[in-house]
Order: sequence, then C-alpha cells, then structure tokens
Amino acid sequence: MIECTLTVELAERSYPIHIGTNGLDQLANLLKDVFKSKQAVVVTNETVAPLYLDAVKQQLHQLSIQVIEVVLPDGEQYKTGQYLDQIYSVMLVNKCDRKTTLVALGGGVIGDMTGYAAATYMRGVSFVQIPTTLLSQVDSSVGGKTGINHPLGKNMIGAFYQPKAVVADMNVFDTLPDRELSAGLAEVIKYGLIDDIAFLEWLEANIDALMSRDKEKLGEAVAWSCRNKARIVAEDETESGVRALLNLGHTFGHAIEAGMGYGVWLHGEGVAAGMVLAAKTSAALGYISEADVARVISILAKANLPVEHPKLGLERYLELMSVDKKNEAGKIRFILMKSLGQSFITADVPVAVLEQVLS
Amino acid sequence: MIECTLTVELAERSYPIHIGTNGLDQLANLLKDVFKSKQAVVVTNETVAPLYLDAVKQQLHQLSIQVIEVVLPDGEQYKTGQYLDQIYSVMLVNKCDRKTTLVALGGGVIGDMTGYAAATYMRGVSFVQIPTTLLSQVDSSVGGKTGINHPLGKNMIGAFYQPKAVVADMNVFDTLPDRELSAGLAEVIKYGLIDDIAFLEWLEANIDALMSRDKEKLGEAVAWSCRNKARIVAEDETESGVRALLNLGHTFGHAIEAGMGYGVWLHGEGVAAGMVLAAKTSAALGYISEADVARVISILAKANLPVEHPKLGLERYLELMSVDKKNEAGKIRFILMKSLGQSFITADVPVAVLEQVLS
Repeated sequence: MIECTLTVELAERSYPIHIGTNGLDQLANLLKDVFKSKQAVVVTNETVAPLYLDAVKQQLHQLSIQVIEVVLPDGEQYKTGQYLDQIYSVMLVNKCDRKTTLVALGGGVIGDMTGYAAATYMRGVSFVQIPTTLLSQVDSSVGGKTGINHPLGKNMIGAFYQPKAVVADMNVFDTLPDRELSAGLAEVIKYGLIDDIAFLEWLEANIDALMSRDKEKLGEAVAWSCRNKARIVAEDETESGVRALLNLGHTFGHAIEAGMGYGVWLHGEGVAAGMVLAAKTSAALGYISEADVARVISILAKANLPVEHPKLGLERYLELMSVDKKNEAGKIRFILMKSLGQSFITADVPVAVLEQVLS
Repeated sequence: MIECTLTVELAERSYPIHIGTNGLDQLANLLKDVFKSKQAVVVTNETVAPLYLDAVKQQLHQLSIQVIEVVLPDGEQYKTGQYLDQIYSVMLVNKCDRKTTLVALGGGVIGDMTGYAAATYMRGVSFVQIPTTLLSQVDSSVGGKTGINHPLGKNMIGAFYQPKAVVADMNVFDTLPDRELSAGLAEVIKYGLIDDIAFLEWLEANIDALMSRDKEKLGEAVAWSCRNKARIVAEDETESGVRALLNLGHTFGHAIEAGMGYGVWLHGEGVAAGMVLAAKTSAALGYISEADVARVISILAKANLPVEHPKLGLERYLELMSVDKKNEAGKIRFILMKSLGQSFITADVPVAVLEQVLS
C-alpha cells in the first residue's frame, strides 16, 4: 500500500501532504506539531460529519485539543458569504484567537471555504485539510487557492493561503459516491493532459482499476497528481504565468457549472466536458488531430464523465466566460493543447471557431 | 515645505509613501508606474467625493485610465460585509480583471475596506491609497492591515496586504473637520509614547502649531509617524511580536468604540481615552509616575481629545476586550508603558487594577 509524504515547496509556506490508507486514524501523530493552541475548529458538512467527524474528534482529543464544530449544508451552492459568515460567527462566539487552527474535513467546497476563513479570520490563522473526495485530494489540497463564490461569478472572492498540512486518506473512497469518484478522475486526467503524457498513458492503462476503487492505484494517482500540481504551483504560486495551465478545461467548465446553475453539474463534470471542448478547439485550430480528441473523449467516457457540453448557445457561453479570472483587458484566455500532453495559454481563438465547437 | 518619499521596506512588497503638499495634483506622475491596465476603481465616500474625486479622476485620465467609481456612505458603521460586497459587485459588473487597480480615496474606513477588497478580489489585485485624513495618513497608510468589522467584533475579518503606493497630501487638511484632526493626532502622539521620547517632546513643543494646521509641521509629524510605524512593521509584518506595540491604547479604545456603538466615538478618540487608561494602568502597576500620566493627559487634552473614558462598567469592558485579536488562550493582552516612551506587551494585569482604573 502506498504510504508517502510529499512536500509542496513554497519556501516558508512549504507543507506536507500525507498520502496513505490510515491517515484519519493517525491524525494525532501526523498533525501533532501543527496546532499552536488547544483549540481547533473543524468545518465539515452534513454528508461528511456522520462518516468521519467522530474519528477526527477522537484523534484531536488525544492531543488534548478542544474541538469546535461547524457543520454546513453540503453543496457548491453553499459556498457563499452567508455560510462563510457562519464560520466567522462560531469562531467569534467561541472566542477563537490567532492561534486557533481550522480543520477542513470535506471536499473542495469545505476546503476552499475553510481555507478562506483561515486566511481572513483576524487576518490569518492556521488551517489543515482533510480532503474526503478524490477531487479535493488532487486539486484543492495543493496550491493554496481558497475562496467563495459570488452571485456574479464562481470563486471570484478569495485568497492564496497555504495549509499547514494535508492528510489524504484512501479509505475515504469507501464512502465516496460513484459520481464524485468520476468527478475527481476528471482532474486526475487533466494532469496527464497538461504536461505529462506518461501519466496519461498510465491512466489509460489503469482506468478500470481506478474505477473499481483499487486503493493502491488510487494512491498512486493521487500522489502523481499532487506531485504534478505541486511542481507547477512551486513555479508560480500566485498564477502570474504557468499556473494558469491548471485551468485546462476550466474556462468552459466554469461556464457550464454557472450556466446550468451551481450544483447541477459537479465541478469535475464541468471540467470533463470543458476539456473535450478545449480538445475540439485545439483540433479546430490545427494543433491536435481528431484521433487525439477521440483519445481525450475515450478516457473521460471510461471514467463515466460527460463528454458532451450542454447547449447553452454561443452568446451565453461568451457571457459566462467573460468573467473568468484569467481574462485580461476583456479578452477571454483559453488553455488549449499544442499536442496531447502539452498545453498552453492563448487569448487567440476566433469567435467562429468557438461557434463551431460549441454548436 | 516638506516633500519626501519614504519607503516601507518589506522585501518584494516594499512600497513608497509620497508626503507633500501637492500629491493630489501630481498623481499621474507619482503613480504612473503603478497601474497594470487601463482600468481603475476609485473607492471613496459621500463626504470625500465632492472634495477630491474630480481631481483624482482628472489625473488618472491623463494616464488614459478608465475610472470606475464606488461612492460609499461615510462612517465606521459602513465598514461591513454588505458594503464590501458593493465594491465586489461593481467590479464584477464592470468586468474588472486581475490587472485592475483599486484606489482608496478617503480615511481609514475607505482604506481598510478598499485594501481588503483588493486582497480578496480574484485572490488579489493591486491597490493604492490616497488617505484624506491625518489618522489614515499616519496609521492605515503603513503596514498593510486591511479588513472589515463583524457584528461580533471590530476588524475581525481581514488580511495583511500591502498597497503599491501611498500619496499623503497635506492639502487635505484644508477640508478636514477639527474633530478628525484631533483624532489623527491621537495616533501621532501614540508613536511618541510607544518608543520615541524625542518625538513626544517634539510634539509637546509643536502641538499648538499642529492644532492650527501648520502644514510644514503636519508634514513633519506625518513623516515621523510613518517612519516610526514603518520601522516596527518591517520588523514584524504579521504581528507575531513587536508590532503589537502599535496597539497602545487600542485594547481599551476598541472596547470604547464598540461599547458606545461604532461611529459614536471616532477611532482616534477611543485610542486617546485608551492611552490614558493604559497610562493609568501602568502607573497603578508601578511602572510610571502620576506625573507621567499627567503628561500623557496634558498633550492629549491640548489636542482636544477625550481623556476620560465612558463608564461602561468593568464587566462590559472585560467582555468587549475579550474578543481583541491580540488575546491568546482567553487572556487579554495589554500594551502598557514601562516608562514614558517605552511600551511593552503583557497579559499580566490583575482584575482589581482594571477595576480601579476603569471605575
């Protein structure tokens, strides 16, 4: 079984990601040096709390830590200022101070909101992440992007803020719904498409084992994904350049999520359909072949992911993509594929090509 | 006339403070290297907008910058999530991107909110400060503390985030109400009391000139204050140690502001009465003499500042001070005076002493 610790290298903000099959039962040991006081706030949701909250509390109690709980409703539609304020209020009522540590126990929504609460409560307190979905293990656990949605745009409010540690436990896959597993695989496949053809080939060879929840293979996929993301983030912590590549599939994907109404499509599902659109756009511009597009579609389909985008119409797509954070001077910036396993950033996509691809 | 540029030394986050008498008329020149795109959002309030907004716009237009305005109501009671969201919404509706620059034109409330909006909009955009009160020129213009109030505590939500430049124009004192001038002098006097007896003596010798708005003297006081604050902030950007000294008078002062209802006492007024309380506590503990206390009271009184605290009662003060960000493990931490011009941090103040001082 895979049991390893990666380090995300960010100078004094470096932190470990512990990957293994018993992380939740070893929290007291893994996190013993993280807590600066005897007070922690565990933020989780109504789905995850019955599954793992007691185990986490038991571990923290071993460290004599007083645990304050915040249990939010489950879903992207609750990643708002209103629910963020619920975290702040619980912390203030409990007189949490700057040495209090926040613990994010849940998927990406919980991780992003908890991280943002940590970034902004009293101008910054420590936090750790215990991601309970594949998506959050390979995505939000690396890179320090925290934030909430705004009624006018997804993830528009946020901060770059690194956790003190991440514990990725493969046992959480025992309780992960099929749809969430697939959504996570979309981001895993993304790391192959961005800049790692060897990983894409490994995924093509192992997609069935991953879909049947082979923990050994899942652990390898998580470690490989985190390592790839950590390498890119270390190069460009605040996304002034190469880090934007991590948004492959996200320009279209965010538009799909927002256009369908947050929570209707999972983030990973939007990214999957978005990567197909990115591949088709790349082919239309002559960068990759139709065979390459078919290969992208094939692995996503094997992961049970949507490969057809919803027909929202060109105008609506353009409107939704116009608020993307990557944009500059009103131009939409796309991540496309120069070849399979080699992505690049461009604002140079004719509307006619988009119309053709989106029709 | 004083015309100088100080640099706040914070490695790659270093920035200049331009102090002079024509800053507003020289913005195009002073800020020409700051803007990363042709879009800026000027955040100001209903009091300041009629006085200076046109001048600022005219200067930015010289740089061919499109100016988007956000005019908020004037007052500490509007430093809330609701009005912060108004800034976000205007930015999103106008499709502001990561290269948009925010300009804070106003006092501390505008500076703190605008800085926090800059820290969190799309995980961080640039901002500059044009402080239009003495208080904001000597306080929020240095140190990167940004944030908003929460119903359960002042400045509880925020971030450390540095501006790209500050322009402190002495001509804004032509329009500053007497009460605001005095409130600013409270923070100026604070820098003498923290660790600079020479500055305190200079202030005692020049308080009448400052009160009669001698711009030469005001410029010197602003430069001296900013220099002192910059030195302390450079040592400890995120307030893990010595920076807490800048909170002299603030533990009591914040309690007064909150206890009276935000907006009833000005921040500087609370700090003035709070410094008197800190001096009296220091005397009660045997650190300074009654003559020293009288000297603190004397200069504050000459600046027309309140030297008597409101009688909220010990219990209420303790309750209000218990949410202070400096506190650790439930203990209230005070900034006291070891001697006049030499402050220190302590959590070691018996309740009986507080009762005596606050009665």
